[in-house]
Amino acid sequence: MKRRDILKAAGLGLAGSALAMPAIAQTAPELRWRLASGFPKSLDTLFGTADLFARYVSEATDGRFQIQTFAAGEIVPGGPATLDAVSANTVEMGHTATYYSWGKDPTFALGTAIPFGLNSRMQNAWMYHGGGMDLMNGFFAKHNMYGLPGGNTGAQMGGWFRKEINTLADLNGLKFRIAGLAGAVLAKVGVVPQQIAAGDIYSALEKGTIDATEFVGPYDDQKLGFVKVAPYYYYPAFWEGGAMLHFLINTAHWEPLPPAYKAVITAAAQAANVDMQAKYDKLNPQAIKDLVAGGAQLRPFNPEIMQACFDAAQQTYGELTAANAEFKAVYDSMTAYRNDSYLWFQVSEYTADTFMMTLQRAGKL
Amino acid sequence: MKRRDILKAAGLGLAGSALAMPAIAQTAPELRWRLASGFPKSLDTLFGTADLFARYVSEATDGRFQIQTFAAGEIVPGGPATLDAVSANTVEMGHTATYYSWGKDPTFALGTAIPFGLNSRMQNAWMYHGGGMDLMNGFFAKHNMYGLPGGNTGAQMGGWFRKEINTLADLNGLKFRIAGLAGAVLAKVGVVPQQIAAGDIYSALEKGTIDATEFVGPYDDQKLGFVKVAPYYYYPAFWEGGAMLHFLINTAHWEPLPPAYKAVITAAAQAANVDMQAKYDKLNPQAIKDLVAGGAQLRPFNPEIMQACFDAAQQTYGELTAANAEFKAVYDSMTAYRNDSYLWFQVSEYTADTFMMTLQRAGKL
Repeated sequence: MKRRDILKAAGLGLAGSALAMPAIAQTAPELRWRLASGFPKSLDTLFGTADLFARYVSEATDGRFQIQTFAAGEIVPGGPATLDAVSANTVEMGHTATYYSWGKDPTFALGTAIPFGLNSRMQNAWMYHGGGMDLMNGFFAKHNMYGLPGGNTGAQMGGWFRKEINTLADLNGLKFRIAGLAGAVLAKVGVVPQQIAAGDIYSALEKGTIDATEFVGPYDDQKLGFVKVAPYYYYPAFWEGGAMLHFLINTAHWEPLPPAYKAVITAAAQAANVDMQAKYDKLNPQAIKDLVAGGAQLRPFNPEIMQACFDAAQQTYGELTAANAEFKAVYDSMTAYRNDSYLWFQVSEYTADTFMMTLQRAGKL
Repeated sequence: MKRRDILKAAGLGLAGSALAMPAIAQTAPELRWRLASGFPKSLDTLFGTADLFARYVSEATDGRFQIQTFAAGEIVPGGPATLDAVSANTVEMGHTATYYSWGKDPTFALGTAIPFGLNSRMQNAWMYHGGGMDLMNGFFAKHNMYGLPGGNTGAQMGGWFRKEINTLADLNGLKFRIAGLAGAVLAKVGVVPQQIAAGDIYSALEKGTIDATEFVGPYDDQKLGFVKVAPYYYYPAFWEGGAMLHFLINTAHWEPLPPAYKAVITAAAQAANVDMQAKYDKLNPQAIKDLVAGGAQLRPFNPEIMQACFDAAQQTYGELTAANAEFKAVYDSMTAYRNDSYLWFQVSEYTADTFMMTLQRAGKL
């Protein structure tokens, strides 16, 4: 009910200014929230998306609703701890990739990316108009959280390898720094997933403690200098065809918010969601050129490897859907949309892009 | 300066509630605007995006800032008249495709789509982070308008043809309902562009007054039933690899807005921008299946035709950049980003999508 309607219902007719003031105070309270980011400030595209969101909320409410952002480690560690802190109401909200919590429940992986899942446009379509947000929020609610899509990296790179990967056999025993569901899938084809903090990857690669690492994409990867110790830069990250972040809000704080603040948060999150993808899409083209100029050797995973990993993923999904009804419900919705969508995308979108890429390769753009 | 800072600067220290009230009234005035859409309500994805935007603005301001949406023809005709009405301050704002006004200045085309331009993700990247919005707003300002990206269709379809188009010669003399800069480019390869109101296309195709028409994509096209009279459904619309709409606001109304309202409008427009693409991406997959089931014959334009049209477009751009410095400045920025971007997109994004499409075609998804 609108403020005007409330006053009308109370038989007061047109709102006099004296009467209107308490209603304003009620609908626009002064609020201070803390947002724990799952990312360090050095990853400015990831962390910066939370800052943009907080700025929109502050500006749109004339500074009445302030959300202070904290980098991973400042008040809450990164990784799954960010989501845990929101769920436990240690902080009012967080900004993270829910798949860090896949070990708690694999359904969390579906909020971010699963191997051979959706690309970033499909993720938006499924989340906003394909029932994805409602399904994920049905699940998040059991963990005391409300979630809003909050950014996307687009298709990530497959990572940095010390040696070339020419056949499926080359993956056997490969010590690959890769986490989550993707690591579980790759383990089925012989990879030995490694978990190493971001700050320790470089020296582990240099010493040969690990053989390879995945990270994000050109713009983020460039900062860590992996090209010097593991120059083979493989693509695509078939386990992250689009990696979506979420703004997660503890339900005890979300539910009592005035409708205006809910609307501000909803629009600000949706705006931040598209902004992050746009920022990556602007920054990655220059970064990949710089990386190649600096010695990165671009290599595609060959079809034999892709197919074997797809088969391993299907086997994993068979196990997960059999064991977890909630995972199955969300997975079935997502993949039904994916299958139709990959039919449609190959018609006009793909044909137009292919023609342009052919011209680009021929130096004719 | 924030309200709190203003009070502090005035030596008042902490704001007492009696003092705070007038400031609130000042920063959140009651406003009623009219938004003229360039589209009819029947095109619900296009028109509906303006409704979503208006709803976000109303909810985020607790109903204090109301924007009433009007379909094309209700208070302002569609086509270039929508933009003209905003520019002339007949309405406070509009929601339209600026390329309808390319005849006034070809720079307007760059706000929506140009042949062989950007895809929709690239448009967002260039607009939000590649300087595109600033460049376009420098141009819009001369027409008394401030613009915000306001939705995208993605790559459109090439349209409905009564006969197959097998060679470039088949385009010669072809009466094709297509407008704007795309029509001017196609005229160079022999097409005779036709301008017909949307409601008259079907009968013109049926009678053979025209040979073909382009419209939007599967979801919108399906409503008009062209499949019955022109069953060859060509792709891609290389003249609209992504068609972006804009929210346009007359500067006399934009500039004096309180900062909070500017923030609300900015976030709401950005949210609506991603929402429209997501909605199309959800609806088009089912629509293309329905159209094919209903007799649509999918046909790609062959490479000879694509190449000839690309060459014609390059010739057109040569003429336009030589004649119009403003067009040249914006075009150069856009195409510089496009060229780098089509290098990057063919690495990870394209490879991941290609693999998934191969599986889709093989029925293995």
